[in-house]
Amino acid sequence: MTDTHTALTNPLPLAQALIRAPSVTPRDEGALDTLQAALTALGFACRRMPFGEVDNLYARLGTADPVFCFAGHTDVVPAGQEASWSAGPFAGEVHGEALIGRGAVDMKGAIAAFVAATARYLDGTKPKGSIAFLITGDEEGPAINGTKKMLQALEAQGERFSHCLVGEPTNRTVLGDMVKIGRRGSLNGVITVTGRQGHVAYPDRAINPIPALMEVLRALTARRLDEGNAHFQPSNLEVTSVDVGNPAHNVIPGEARAKFNIRFNTEQDGEALKSWIGGEIAKAQQGFTGIISADLTVTGDAFQTPEGPFTALLAEAILARTGISPELSTSGGTSDARFIKDYAPVAEFGLVGASMHQIDEQTPVADIKVLTEIYHDILTRYFEVFA
Amino acid sequence: MTDTHTALTNPLPLAQALIRAPSVTPRDEGALDTLQAALTALGFACRRMPFGEVDNLYARLGTADPVFCFAGHTDVVPAGQEASWSAGPFAGEVHGEALIGRGAVDMKGAIAAFVAATARYLDGTKPKGSIAFLITGDEEGPAINGTKKMLQALEAQGERFSHCLVGEPTNRTVLGDMVKIGRRGSLNGVITVTGRQGHVAYPDRAINPIPALMEVLRALTARRLDEGNAHFQPSNLEVTSVDVGNPAHNVIPGEARAKFNIRFNTEQDGEALKSWIGGEIAKAQQGFTGIISADLTVTGDAFQTPEGPFTALLAEAILARTGISPELSTSGGTSDARFIKDYAPVAEFGLVGASMHQIDEQTPVADIKVLTEIYHDILTRYFEVFA
Ligand SMILES: [Zn+2]
Ligand SMILES: [Zn+2]
Repeated sequence: MTDTHTALTNPLPLAQALIRAPSVTPRDEGALDTLQAALTALGFACRRMPFGEVDNLYARLGTADPVFCFAGHTDVVPAGQEASWSAGPFAGEVHGEALIGRGAVDMKGAIAAFVAATARYLDGTKPKGSIAFLITGDEEGPAINGTKKMLQALEAQGERFSHCLVGEPTNRTVLGDMVKIGRRGSLNGVITVTGRQGHVAYPDRAINPIPALMEVLRALTARRLDEGNAHFQPSNLEVTSVDVGNPAHNVIPGEARAKFNIRFNTEQDGEALKSWIGGEIAKAQQGFTGIISADLTVTGDAFQTPEGPFTALLAEAILARTGISPELSTSGGTSDARFIKDYAPVAEFGLVGASMHQIDEQTPVADIKVLTEIYHDILTRYFEVFA
Repeated sequence: MTDTHTALTNPLPLAQALIRAPSVTPRDEGALDTLQAALTALGFACRRMPFGEVDNLYARLGTADPVFCFAGHTDVVPAGQEASWSAGPFAGEVHGEALIGRGAVDMKGAIAAFVAATARYLDGTKPKGSIAFLITGDEEGPAINGTKKMLQALEAQGERFSHCLVGEPTNRTVLGDMVKIGRRGSLNGVITVTGRQGHVAYPDRAINPIPALMEVLRALTARRLDEGNAHFQPSNLEVTSVDVGNPAHNVIPGEARAKFNIRFNTEQDGEALKSWIGGEIAKAQQGFTGIISADLTVTGDAFQTPEGPFTALLAEAILARTGISPELSTSGGTSDARFIKDYAPVAEFGLVGASMHQIDEQTPVADIKVLTEIYHDILTRYFEVFA
């Protein structure tokens, strides 16, 4: 074991170095170089996979099956009001017990724990299989030039993954309380109703688009999509904005627009939801002399990784290191797991997410250390179970 | 009869001089000086009645009853895109048969016709009663410092009006087709719903204000207010804007707002409508954990001037000069008649309104001349009937 190797078993310096690269999507600012240097020192074969303006890193150690893949992202959301932070958002400082900085929990801290756990595991052991790293610089942004394209390209090159663990901050309040074994699907919709502008005193000469828009929104919100199932809460539609922007009290506007989002479970299908919405719009269009149009995008279908040996060993490792039996959950927002699930069974476990995307994003340094132990335990159990 | 007096019997030069004063509310730019000079030359006692940043003019000739009052405004709406005009909006040019300019029909052309008709009537006649001019510079604006305050102040000073004629552009397509003998009332409402912002993935932690707002709007638009009556079309509520302004597809907004306007007839009462709206909001508030509030303003109650000798002589004068029997209507937007109706029977007749408030506002010069003849005929008949 080299000195470099030994140094890499401590996750904190790498977490700090990653935070010091202000890699706000789509910028990289050296974050992937830092990670690649560490993985190269551990013997990984690394290569960059740039798409568009985004850089991505794929690394692999070993050639045999099974292939255990750590997945994540080095990009971060913007810092917001820097003056409101207790420490520089890109300073990577430890204040008291906490590492503060943008990406501390989402998810540079977890990536450092990936690396430190791997360094410890490789200390004396040669895995009976392979370890891979699938790291993108485009998870917080449009997610077009990241994980999705990497997986397509890697599959074309013959790369296969046996199981994948994403390091998103899954825990709600304490490290160990939640593993994500699926995600709801998400559909974004924009409905635009075009009428004809006019004066409120002469409504017969105008076509007010607002009542037609309200009728569509009423139809969409009136339906209870499902009751949920064993692994998912009920699917839910939220109208997120309605916008007309008419400053005049005496003018009937010419156009109105609404935005909505559906988070849906495995009882639903993105294309079927689009058909339903199209049907409701067609109904509202009947007898309406304006035009109702919709722009619908399914950004991910719902999925659930079946419970079995893989999810069991994750839960056992967490219980062993924290004393907590994690909830296997499908709640919360989308992540790149929505892409990975088409290539391998995938689960997610990382730090506590409470401060993610906020001012003073932070994690106890102790959590990064325990997370490293958990990941190490997972690697050990994984190759015992699957090799 | 002086030369000045003779010159004033032609309405066109005065209309042009008034248009050349770019009196966009609340600016006057010499418009009232021009009018006052003409009325002074005709023997009127003139005085300014400034309120706030607005100037107004009251003029009276004679001391006896009955008092016939011409009412109107010298302020105009903005020109809009000046480059789109065929002639300068404040040049007062005649192109072919038409006088073009901001205020040509709304309502500097009518004010010039008031003056020219009065000049002709006074040529040899001394009215058996009084003629008054009630002219504001704040009709197109908030209408706070104009006719309303003038009437309050004049009443306090003992001034009384027997009948009033407002020169708003009442005709739809041809001079003589419409006299207004009332107006609908108008109520402006703003409804604000305050919820709690959150992420669409965790709807239980947020309070989406949009469904509550839609429920209120549905209740308000579902009620058919009335069927109208002999003089009025049905009352009507139009939602004029809904605004959330949430740019993020994955965020439940914290606040939503809607604006609406009710144009209502004499079957309704502004205060009763406010009570009804308040009741619907109270219903929607039940069981909703956010806050629903409303800001309601009645800008004018509905009124109707009873048909009788006054409306009859207006119609007879119009028929005599145009061959058209005007419709006695209560349609269209609000005007300062809503204030005057509390002080005297009031009707409205002026030019053709089709181009008002638009690019290339214009009137046939011939219409101003015929309108002058009609006003002259009205003065003659008025003092025959009421003196
Ligand atoms: Zn993340
Ligand atoms: Zn006007």
